[in-house]
Amino acid sequence: AAHGARKMVDYGRFLALLASALLVGFVSVILSLVWVFHYREGLSWDGGLGEFNWHPVLIITGFVFIQGIAIIVYRLPWTWKCSKLLMKFIHAGLNTVAMILAIVSMVAVFDYHNAKNIPNMYSLHSWIGLAAVIFYSLQLFLGFAIFLLPFAPVYLRAVLMPIHIYSGLTIFATVIATALMGITEKLIFSLRNPAYSASPPEATLVNCLGLLLVVFGSLILWMASRPHWKRPLEEHTKVLRPIGETPEGTEVESTMTNSSNADKSDLRINTEAARKQNLKFDEAGQRSTM
Amino acid sequence: AAHGARKMVDYGRFLALLASALLVGFVSVILSLVWVFHYREGLSWDGGLGEFNWHPVLIITGFVFIQGIAIIVYRLPWTWKCSKLLMKFIHAGLNTVAMILAIVSMVAVFDYHNAKNIPNMYSLHSWIGLAAVIFYSLQLFLGFAIFLLPFAPVYLRAVLMPIHIYSGLTIFATVIATALMGITEKLIFSLRNPAYSASPPEATLVNCLGLLLVVFGSLILWMASRPHWKRPLEEHTKVLRPIGETPEGTEVESTMTNSSNADKSDLRINTEAARKQNLKFDEAGQRSTM
Repeated sequence: AAHGARKMVDYGRFLALLASALLVGFVSVILSLVWVFHYREGLSWDGGLGEFNWHPVLIITGFVFIQGIAIIVYRLPWTWKCSKLLMKFIHAGLNTVAMILAIVSMVAVFDYHNAKNIPNMYSLHSWIGLAAVIFYSLQLFLGFAIFLLPFAPVYLRAVLMPIHIYSGLTIFATVIATALMGITEKLIFSLRNPAYSASPPEATLVNCLGLLLVVFGSLILWMASRPHWKRPLEEHTKVLRPIGETPEGTEVESTMTNSSNADKSDLRINTEAARKQNLKFDEAGQRSTM
Repeated sequence: AAHGARKMVDYGRFLALLASALLVGFVSVILSLVWVFHYREGLSWDGGLGEFNWHPVLIITGFVFIQGIAIIVYRLPWTWKCSKLLMKFIHAGLNTVAMILAIVSMVAVFDYHNAKNIPNMYSLHSWIGLAAVIFYSLQLFLGFAIFLLPFAPVYLRAVLMPIHIYSGLTIFATVIATALMGITEKLIFSLRNPAYSASPPEATLVNCLGLLLVVFGSLILWMASRPHWKRPLEEHTKVLRPIGETPEGTEVESTMTNSSNADKSDLRINTEAARKQNLKFDEAGQRSTM
């Protein structure tokens, strides 16, 4: 009963953080629209500033908000009864949507720059932003080929999963850092009379938007890095595992993907034979697309 | 023998990453000096641009490079024979140095702004930078009070350690993001004729510096988040642990601090009684200052 109560408190805490992240992300998108429509030239696709304005709106909507949700989609407890394959499709699908929006938002800037004869790719924002889009596309392609398609051998999935998780979180943090540089550039370039340094209402609003992006990123990284909020193992992997290796009524997990789980496995016993069995069957089940 | 060879390969990999991080961090500090002495007004303390220039140099030296080393200092394998208490002093000491340099670098900017009648604290860079310094000081104070001083009870240390690790890494990433915003601001404000958009050599050099900061941060975060590079448990905690709970020749670890270890414990067996024992004795030992 005490264990159940602890579970409920933990579940409530997850929901509170999720609600906060959704709220902060949603308010960020709204603030980007207020920025663009109330203080700037709105949205259009004519080589003017209205076309440039798609850049912040689509980056914040797609590359920050949707990417953030894609990162934590496996953590939603009500999806744990869905198949792992379905969740992989949702994870890959959300990331694909985010990538498309990021690419469209880049096209908007290049189009605008070319129409106005402004050089492309001179700023640190553009260098790191382009690198982030390239690494994100590579991450999506490799993730699709290795973890979604059924061809990659189990040991390869086990070796690459920690790298996939690290790359994903690092790219996400880099995207937010790039957005902060973009906000800085845009406020300096566009605020004249009063300048950025005079703190007009637009500057305060957009600074708050930048702060919210940092809060959103911090919430997503916290949720994504808590081991006890990980999706549990698939049921069928427990059936597939050789019974001789595991005492009855206990749970076995691999740590190859950094999946330590404070609630379920605080005591670990190491044997080399069991380690190999475990790697083979546990990772195979956990990372399969079946 | 195969296990030993694997250990050696893993050790070599850690050394290669550490050497890369040190090189990238060192080159970043050099580039900040080249920027300031070759392209800008050098260093001075007279309310002029030479005083401002302490800001990027001290931030990159202290708040990025030294903080990065402080984060991974427990991971250096040759320190594992040193006492945990000594390593805590080194960790706290390096972070204190980083904080002092960050504060001096902020004083330089405020001094310069005040001398030139430039407003303070209007930019997103200044907002997030000040927040980072405040959270960093809080982190240092709480870390000192809870993990270094011998007064905090064991359960509190166990509960707060994952938060300490998460906060430390998130603040570190935020500091790098803030440095990137600062570089963006400074290049836009200081490059006139040719402007930033004309990509003069200074712009290219400082963009490269920004890229190196991202690479440095990524290397540190990779090294800090690999569970198998964690400092092993203290010897005396193994002696203190009740023998009845642990089969001979095996190792027991707690996962409360996200300390999964792929090399040592791939198979974990869960019992509620053992979980409580484990929490009590393992965390107590691991987090003690003795």
